[in-house]
Amino acid sequence: MPPIVSIIGKANSGKTTLLEKLIPELNKRGYKIGTIKHHVHEFDMDKRGKDTWRHKQAGARIVALSSPTAVGIIRDTERDLSIDELTQQYFTEVDLVITEGYKRANAPKIEIHRTSEHEFPLASRDDTWIAMICDKPQPDIIPQFDLNDISSLATFLENSLINPISVAKIKLNIDGEAISLPHHSKSLIAKALAGITAESDQRTSNPKKITITISNE
Amino acid sequence: MPPIVSIIGKANSGKTTLLEKLIPELNKRGYKIGTIKHHVHEFDMDKRGKDTWRHKQAGARIVALSSPTAVGIIRDTERDLSIDELTQQYFTEVDLVITEGYKRANAPKIEIHRTSEHEFPLASRDDTWIAMICDKPQPDIIPQFDLNDISSLATFLENSLINPISVAKIKLNIDGEAISLPHHSKSLIAKALAGITAESDQRTSNPKKITITISNE
Repeated sequence: MPPIVSIIGKANSGKTTLLEKLIPELNKRGYKIGTIKHHVHEFDMDKRGKDTWRHKQAGARIVALSSPTAVGIIRDTERDLSIDELTQQYFTEVDLVITEGYKRANAPKIEIHRTSEHEFPLASRDDTWIAMICDKPQPDIIPQFDLNDISSLATFLENSLINPISVAKIKLNIDGEAISLPHHSKSLIAKALAGITAESDQRTSNPKKITITISNE
Repeated sequence: MPPIVSIIGKANSGKTTLLEKLIPELNKRGYKIGTIKHHVHEFDMDKRGKDTWRHKQAGARIVALSSPTAVGIIRDTERDLSIDELTQQYFTEVDLVITEGYKRANAPKIEIHRTSEHEFPLASRDDTWIAMICDKPQPDIIPQFDLNDISSLATFLENSLINPISVAKIKLNIDGEAISLPHHSKSLIAKALAGITAESDQRTSNPKKITITISNE
């Protein structure tokens, strides 16, 4: 199953506009992207009067429009499907699934916050929040990306989700001696590094080796 | 995999209009129906300006719109997917898949022919043609259904595809003696019976026992 990230934020914070810039940047880097939009109002995707629309109106449970370049499927459901269910069933062939909305689901979340639209970001937050995108620096401990710095955000997604820094390869060495690290600590370091390498000026996509040295000499 | 039937016919023969009557009739009988429409022109399903449309325009390979009552998926493909591929991937939970078009595929076909629109039905025909739907009786050896007799057509689909007459249950008895029949002959009888029971005035959905007696007494 491909990795999933949810772009969340208050109404009119610019989620779709951000995706319109982020998807081409990730495509340019060679990644196939899938998106899921959560919709709570009346479902409305097909075009009124088209044959598939007429089939659906007549009571078909699932309709498909199939062409040499694309396929469209519209199906009834009994309930809201989870992001995982949707990804497993429909998104097996992409490198990353980006959802718009789904702030209550368990996927890693990136919040977009524009101070020109809202004074404060979303109030609730848990450890699935992995980064912020904002128009002004925020007093926040998670990685932050400027709204216009799409390249750094793409690098962050590469390093944290698409090709994550392998936890198995993280080693700690103190005064020349190898110290064993519990998996939880390695995972924490991996996440922090993904943010740091993406935010730093010397950013690089797909880093081969990262060294952090803390010297008291 | 659910059974598949293709409704075919010349342009403007009334395929979609027929489906608009047939689908509710099959729903009324308790069957979940899926439909596939073949489309050779530019793919155009979503609504211009909607978020999913914007994601797709930006380069997403697969987009989904998910709500509590329905899911819509639009994905790029490299080639025309076959009816079987589409059915296996997207239609596992229906009782019958009806395609509009696909006259060159291998699924069983029912041709709709309106003499008010075209003098002759389609020229090419093979043994996947299982019935005709027409506004006037045709000189034809396969079962025929009147354009307005949706009930008989639904019964035919029930008996021939949804709950086909089980070939294993066909027995031949001549003068009180059981005669063994090859599978091919049983299959031919099953198909003929599906047509006969649907066309007859005493039609019945899901017949329990059919007896044909040819008596020289």
